[in-house]
Amino acid sequence: MSEIITSPKNEKLRNVSLLQKKKKARDEQGLFVIEGARIFEDALKSAPERIEQIFISESFSKSSEWLKIGGKRDSEGKPVFAVNRLEDRALTVSDDAFVKICETVTPQGILCVMRMKEYSLADIPAKRLLLLENIQDPGNLGTMIRTAEAAGITGIIMSCGTVDIYSPKVTRSTMGSIFRIPFMYSDNICDTIDMLKKQGVTVYGAYLRDGRPYDKVQFKQPCAVLIGNEGNGISDETIARVSERVFIPMHGEIESLNAAVAAALLMYRIED
Amino acid sequence: MSEIITSPKNEKLRNVSLLQKKKKARDEQGLFVIEGARIFEDALKSAPERIEQIFISESFSKSSEWLKIGGKRDSEGKPVFAVNRLEDRALTVSDDAFVKICETVTPQGILCVMRMKEYSLADIPAKRLLLLENIQDPGNLGTMIRTAEAAGITGIIMSCGTVDIYSPKVTRSTMGSIFRIPFMYSDNICDTIDMLKKQGVTVYGAYLRDGRPYDKVQFKQPCAVLIGNEGNGISDETIARVSERVFIPMHGEIESLNAAVAAALLMYRIED
Repeated sequence: MSEIITSPKNEKLRNVSLLQKKKKARDEQGLFVIEGARIFEDALKSAPERIEQIFISESFSKSSEWLKIGGKRDSEGKPVFAVNRLEDRALTVSDDAFVKICETVTPQGILCVMRMKEYSLADIPAKRLLLLENIQDPGNLGTMIRTAEAAGITGIIMSCGTVDIYSPKVTRSTMGSIFRIPFMYSDNICDTIDMLKKQGVTVYGAYLRDGRPYDKVQFKQPCAVLIGNEGNGISDETIARVSERVFIPMHGEIESLNAAVAAALLMYRIED
Repeated sequence: MSEIITSPKNEKLRNVSLLQKKKKARDEQGLFVIEGARIFEDALKSAPERIEQIFISESFSKSSEWLKIGGKRDSEGKPVFAVNRLEDRALTVSDDAFVKICETVTPQGILCVMRMKEYSLADIPAKRLLLLENIQDPGNLGTMIRTAEAAGITGIIMSCGTVDIYSPKVTRSTMGSIFRIPFMYSDNICDTIDMLKKQGVTVYGAYLRDGRPYDKVQFKQPCAVLIGNEGNGISDETIARVSERVFIPMHGEIESLNAAVAAALLMYRIED
């Protein structure tokens, strides 16, 4: 365990800030950042080999929370990390410097740099899929990933116009599902749909204007549910490729449902 | 139409900032703020009598957007508002000063102070209800209200520990439903449940640990769906009062669903 980092100009801390803010830096380095004890525990459980560096605030290193998630203190009283041979990857940061590398408003005191995982189509069983076109809101994407795991989705394929899955707000709102569900970006979501259909996958597109009411459809495996952009829905070019359009009936004068809500209602209709 | 307000110290602008930030100020004045052209149009359509003051940025007053939502220009070229006798309620604000009273990062140029509406139990038909206990996230509450309208919910009753429905993030994420669905805060949600049950309303509580799977339950009217706090779910005291506990089956290792997602799945099961 090295000394406590106190300078915000420390190279490692500056790189964390860069990874938090810039997709380009994340892509170049193949790294991303997660914040908080809970998602750290998920990482530890599901992807310990991808943990590159753990940063803990000085006060967190002295807390019982730290002990609870596998931390301990060495003979000199300095915090070390005892789990999964990660002892040399934990760095202590002064509270002031720690706050500066966090995106959350009230940081818990633990932050972790992780290696991305590249999934290919072969990693994504074409049984119960979620397809996303140009989802823009990080919270929506994160919630969809979280719900997808709960709904038993076997993989997520996103158009390349979808918000970066490794942005801090997305990873946070996945509640750890990001480590457990395979996903990939597709350069051409239309081609992906065609390919899935050739494999016998029925692709259902969530549509506002026409189609069958979703509760009258039997979503049988293998199938995929496609959700479009928050403001514009599925593009004309893409909706032309789906096997069937489905809609969610709406009372009142509301124009559309929240995209994550629509995704949830459809994903939960897929039969086991 | 008066002169353009340029000083951020202008008393009216300062009060808008106060209403944006402080629940206490909102409650004392019985006023709240909405931002953006779309929700303004909803207000105009559903609650024009509650519009107290409209603030538009100088550049918005010159835009075609302004004309589209009912604005026009008087003989001197100054913007006036021609709809619903609101002509004397529009004030133009310099772009610099306007940005300062907004909570959104990229303001559209229109903001509106509105009078709250007090609903009582008599305004809430006990047919398809949404009950909320201590929901904390404004985005979740807003999304629930939006989904509630779409699902045909006839009213929303919230525990007094629920986040303020008039906070800017909530009103924004309701997408206008806040003007169309009756709601109220209950001082004692347990008493409310008892009262509803006496009226013949079946109260279903969303629960993680036990109960019937939600897709095996026939949610017949009159009924109410109760959703608990994001982190803790429904409190022990409150869950003891419900007619029946229901749960949403979850695959994977996810601990819980997002509260707005859980609410959507349940509300959409209520039969017409």
